[in-house]
Amino acid sequence: MNANSIFGIHPVRQALLDGSGGRLLMVTGKRSKRLDELRHLAEDRRVPLEWTAKENMDEIAGEQANHQGVLFLADEGPVVNYKIDDFLEPQQHQRCFLILDGITDPGNLGACLRSAATAGVDAVIVPKHGTAPLNNIAMKRSSGAASQVPYIEVVNLARTIRLLKESGVWILGTKADEEQNLEAIDFCRDIAIVMGSEERGIRHNTAKQCDLWAGIPMSNPEFTLNVSVATGICLYEMQRQRRS
Amino acid sequence: MNANSIFGIHPVRQALLDGSGGRLLMVTGKRSKRLDELRHLAEDRRVPLEWTAKENMDEIAGEQANHQGVLFLADEGPVVNYKIDDFLEPQQHQRCFLILDGITDPGNLGACLRSAATAGVDAVIVPKHGTAPLNNIAMKRSSGAASQVPYIEVVNLARTIRLLKESGVWILGTKADEEQNLEAIDFCRDIAIVMGSEERGIRHNTAKQCDLWAGIPMSNPEFTLNVSVATGICLYEMQRQRRS
Repeated sequence: MNANSIFGIHPVRQALLDGSGGRLLMVTGKRSKRLDELRHLAEDRRVPLEWTAKENMDEIAGEQANHQGVLFLADEGPVVNYKIDDFLEPQQHQRCFLILDGITDPGNLGACLRSAATAGVDAVIVPKHGTAPLNNIAMKRSSGAASQVPYIEVVNLARTIRLLKESGVWILGTKADEEQNLEAIDFCRDIAIVMGSEERGIRHNTAKQCDLWAGIPMSNPEFTLNVSVATGICLYEMQRQRRS
Repeated sequence: MNANSIFGIHPVRQALLDGSGGRLLMVTGKRSKRLDELRHLAEDRRVPLEWTAKENMDEIAGEQANHQGVLFLADEGPVVNYKIDDFLEPQQHQRCFLILDGITDPGNLGACLRSAATAGVDAVIVPKHGTAPLNNIAMKRSSGAASQVPYIEVVNLARTIRLLKESGVWILGTKADEEQNLEAIDFCRDIAIVMGSEERGIRHNTAKQCDLWAGIPMSNPEFTLNVSVATGICLYEMQRQRRS
């Protein structure tokens, strides 16, 4: 699996709409209205189209990938790596960062990036070690968003958080059993929302840097939310407050 | 893959905690603190434990399943099928139903059930035809919730919605490009939230039955939310309003 491959109808459509350079691969003999639309979109964008046997595409896409008969081979990597230094100046808008402290499931990582894109966050920050790779599963689940949201991998997350704090960003830690209600947090300021990993939550060294803590109150706390759903809810609450 | 198999550490722990009857299978020679905890939990609950080779478990779990070395074979199906007739009486609490109108991805279905469980919805209602199966992927993504939330499969969804309306339930349709803001909806009444399928949204015959419409406003509408994240946000907004 090439890191620059994007597969599945929705992510490929997004890549074509974004004007990404590359080649489109389609399975010979597979036809549908949605595949036809993609083909026409590729023609419009002057993206070369190649036909290939299903077995060949299965192999390129890898075992776990549901490629839906279409694959986009991008000329460049879909993920642009930014540097934290580019985000340390106060902006005219209220900044928002999403810090994912060790998400281990590529699908969850992709889903978080998708929600981050809808919320227009300034950047997503992850520790370089201990974070799931942005592989084909992550790309597909992000539905094209992984190539659009500024993504920052850092070696020392605690140090990065200190830099953010020095630049005026409040650090909000989240945990399932926190009594302080998400709604009680004031999101109308520069803020970074920290989400912990699926099984272990926020790491000790990261937790020490948090200025505020919040939880999502649930009618039935016997269950917990998936990390990507919890991320979506935090970003919804932020947008809700900033609108009103 | 047996429909009664639950695999992965978190879902199996939930099944054991729920007191479900069955057998625990573990991969011979695989040891970890979390697997040891499961083994002790099984002993406490007098659930028989069997050891098996990894290849054997791979085969039972199926290709796409990350079983993490543990499998719970339940005596009975994990999903209890309820009937809509059991939910047509007004209750002392404000009722909430989640209607999933043709979710085709088993992982999304499981994720929606997980969020529904945290919100304590009365029941999840799906059309019998055109909904993803509650297979191993759905069960794992639901993290144990699929066996806890009342789940109703109906042949004629439009008819079921009419029955709900007659019993005093308001039907809220959701769509990405709806101008009416989710927050403007009054959730403090008996309500059913309708989510459409990943690619096509709510079907025409279902849409005709909706009393209200809402969308989730997004800073960057170029992207859309995953259906399970959108479901989580709608249920968050409902709980938020009902608390205050």
